[in-house]
Amino acid sequence: MENGGGEIKWRFGGENEKITKAGKITIRGILDILKCSLDSNDDRTVIPLGHGDPSAFPSFRTSEVAEDAIVDAVRSANFNSYSPTVGILPARRAIAEHLSRDLPYELSPDDVFLTIGCTQAVEVALTVLARPGANILLPRPGFPYYEARASFNNLEYRHFDLLPDKGWEVDLDAVEALADENTVAMVIINPGNPCGNVFSYQHLKKVAETARRLGILVIADEVYDHLTFGSNPFVPMGVFGSIVPVLTLGSISKRWIVPGWRLGWLVTSDPNGVLKKTKIVQSIMGCLNISCDPATFIQGAIPHILENTKADFFNKIISLLRQSADICYEEIKEINCITCPHKPEGSMFVMVKLDTSPLEDITDDMDFCIKLAQEESVIVLPGTAVGLKNWLRITFAIEPSTLKNGFERMKMFCQRHAKQ
Amino acid sequence: MENGGGEIKWRFGGENEKITKAGKITIRGILDILKCSLDSNDDRTVIPLGHGDPSAFPSFRTSEVAEDAIVDAVRSANFNSYSPTVGILPARRAIAEHLSRDLPYELSPDDVFLTIGCTQAVEVALTVLARPGANILLPRPGFPYYEARASFNNLEYRHFDLLPDKGWEVDLDAVEALADENTVAMVIINPGNPCGNVFSYQHLKKVAETARRLGILVIADEVYDHLTFGSNPFVPMGVFGSIVPVLTLGSISKRWIVPGWRLGWLVTSDPNGVLKKTKIVQSIMGCLNISCDPATFIQGAIPHILENTKADFFNKIISLLRQSADICYEEIKEINCITCPHKPEGSMFVMVKLDTSPLEDITDDMDFCIKLAQEESVIVLPGTAVGLKNWLRITFAIEPSTLKNGFERMKMFCQRHAKQ
Ligand SMILES: Cc1ncc(COP(=O)(O)O)c(C=O)c1O
Ligand SMILES: Cc1ncc(COP(=O)(O)O)c(C=O)c1O
Repeated sequence: MENGGGEIKWRFGGENEKITKAGKITIRGILDILKCSLDSNDDRTVIPLGHGDPSAFPSFRTSEVAEDAIVDAVRSANFNSYSPTVGILPARRAIAEHLSRDLPYELSPDDVFLTIGCTQAVEVALTVLARPGANILLPRPGFPYYEARASFNNLEYRHFDLLPDKGWEVDLDAVEALADENTVAMVIINPGNPCGNVFSYQHLKKVAETARRLGILVIADEVYDHLTFGSNPFVPMGVFGSIVPVLTLGSISKRWIVPGWRLGWLVTSDPNGVLKKTKIVQSIMGCLNISCDPATFIQGAIPHILENTKADFFNKIISLLRQSADICYEEIKEINCITCPHKPEGSMFVMVKLDTSPLEDITDDMDFCIKLAQEESVIVLPGTAVGLKNWLRITFAIEPSTLKNGFERMKMFCQRHAKQ
Repeated sequence: MENGGGEIKWRFGGENEKITKAGKITIRGILDILKCSLDSNDDRTVIPLGHGDPSAFPSFRTSEVAEDAIVDAVRSANFNSYSPTVGILPARRAIAEHLSRDLPYELSPDDVFLTIGCTQAVEVALTVLARPGANILLPRPGFPYYEARASFNNLEYRHFDLLPDKGWEVDLDAVEALADENTVAMVIINPGNPCGNVFSYQHLKKVAETARRLGILVIADEVYDHLTFGSNPFVPMGVFGSIVPVLTLGSISKRWIVPGWRLGWLVTSDPNGVLKKTKIVQSIMGCLNISCDPATFIQGAIPHILENTKADFFNKIISLLRQSADICYEEIKEINCITCPHKPEGSMFVMVKLDTSPLEDITDDMDFCIKLAQEESVIVLPGTAVGLKNWLRITFAIEPSTLKNGFERMKMFCQRHAKQ
């Protein structure tokens, strides 16, 4: 058992299969590949249409109110201590009040659990639901962090489709067909990433009724809540919490354009208390008890941020997104190898179908995106990264002029690669 | 499979055994029990000698430099974006330089991974090392978060003792006896929590040689680094990184007294590159890829915090801790049912042995702590929480006057409960 002289035999190491498997497809991983494909000899600036983080653009700078709130919290020195694992009460209360405005009932602070962005809310939800044999239903296309965390937790996942011809609505027949007695939950992302759609009240109600019939809960990822600019207003899934218990996941990352601040929430939108009775709440608290917390002073800033951010700020961001979504939609029409089945109405993304047949030497979406990065310094996410091969996810949450520039380069790219 | 009318059969829920098992013993859980035992009719202030977070006391307020650094980072608006999963380069570089000062070799920024406090560094280290059949060696008494995360990751753990009569040194014979071909690592916490000891250079070298002989790596939890005030200076385990690869875990929580800021690191102190060759580095990156990150602007403040905090601040904190450790040590001598085998030289804690035989109606450490909370509004951690029954962990990192007050109450308590 002991190491003598000579070469040491180390007993740790080798590939960690669980981690490798869980991390196989991540948006970050694929964006890294694209970044490595960039041509450093290209003097033009890189145009990032791949990721949902406009915070680096001056027009998308967060509100002064939010910055002030952080500064005040730090200067007070009242928030340097460890926080309770569920989050500090004033922040839980502020989030409960904030979300209750859109609900037919009042959330209590006890319904709110603070998390490190919506990311940790996903992590906690899937950790809590994972148990031997259980499965969960995920949307395709979707947000691959769900697949990663489910895999990591040994929680089986099954995909239902979002239907491009029906404005990316959930294929509810597929949900019914996929579910069995071991299905514990289904996930919806609304407003949609990657599709940029916004579910109607009627459709959400059908989702709730379907889930109730199946006896499963709904995880509603509403990280893009209120970032809508089409005809459907944002309706939180929690509106249907008395039909089916809902875990609402959200954060300040997108609406306040501060994804680096890492402050989110997991909320039990469940006026009938089903999640308490079924011990899901107990498991959430247990899970948070052995997890990391968001920085306490950012929690301390939350009441101020939620209560005092001016409507002006939100309006400015929405109108910017509407403008750039419009540009995006019009520009896509100009490029013959991509088509957009549904004009984006929310979030920061649109999905377009790639047709490689008019192209000479492009084999698929991944090939398209790698060559586009190499030749035009434009980053676009291949649909493969979100579960739909030969589609592309385009982010329009950038400065409109940069967006136009990006489409010009894409046009040139497609012309250059067109069959003669 | 479908739910008709009447009572719904929900398919999720029930106790999550993995979470329950992992969270069985946590310091927070036991402190919660003690807090619930407090008598709300007692007008005296509660004296918290149970947890290692002095940030609420005015004397322990963090340095202005640190607060300024955060404010500047927020105001710059340069750190609102998502960070890379390993952390931003300037912060990695600053930490590499900061830690290299105490090492015989230079760390590279690539050796440094930013984490959400030392807590997430523990989480990542244990996740990376967990694989079917593997086991890890943990100190007793220890920091129960290791047991919790190991349990959660299905990583078997085995305890070696720290020896009170040898200044809480590691029982290296026990380490050799416990290890087998499936042992992957051992954990040391230096300066010690809960024992308040500081390992000598010679002892750390022996730890390294033992680990090398066994072919296991050393996880060195140095979250209390440089909080020392006895005869042994702080020596980082990384000094012996060429004998055995070391994962160094740390944070700004304790030295800067900002545990709520959630900024820590996991560092490969491994000049021979063993951790790269054995793919541990790859697994660390894979794990971070599917985990949450510390807030970007706090990362952005790190170079300024590490480089510009004045020696005055550290000196003040150290002299406060020395003063209160002295008070603690003297006061303990005055109480006949507790004895301290080793004067604290570092961290914020001391372990004392409880002898219940001179007491009338106290059955064990837990009983002692619950009654002490009830009757005297003093919170002390029962040794059971850190793996040693019938010991107590006393925190001395509080205002000296409050500490004295706490001991007066403890004295009264022991007198009142003494056998006649
Ligand atoms: C659908 C979806 N859920 C969750 C997240 C994570 O959000 P956060 O930044 O709040 O962690 C994102 C981020 O892009 C997202 O698109
Ligand atoms: C030994 C030990 N390790 C790790 C931690 C966690 O530290 P952090 O606040 O940096 O997450 C603590 C906190 O008390 C500790 O005592």
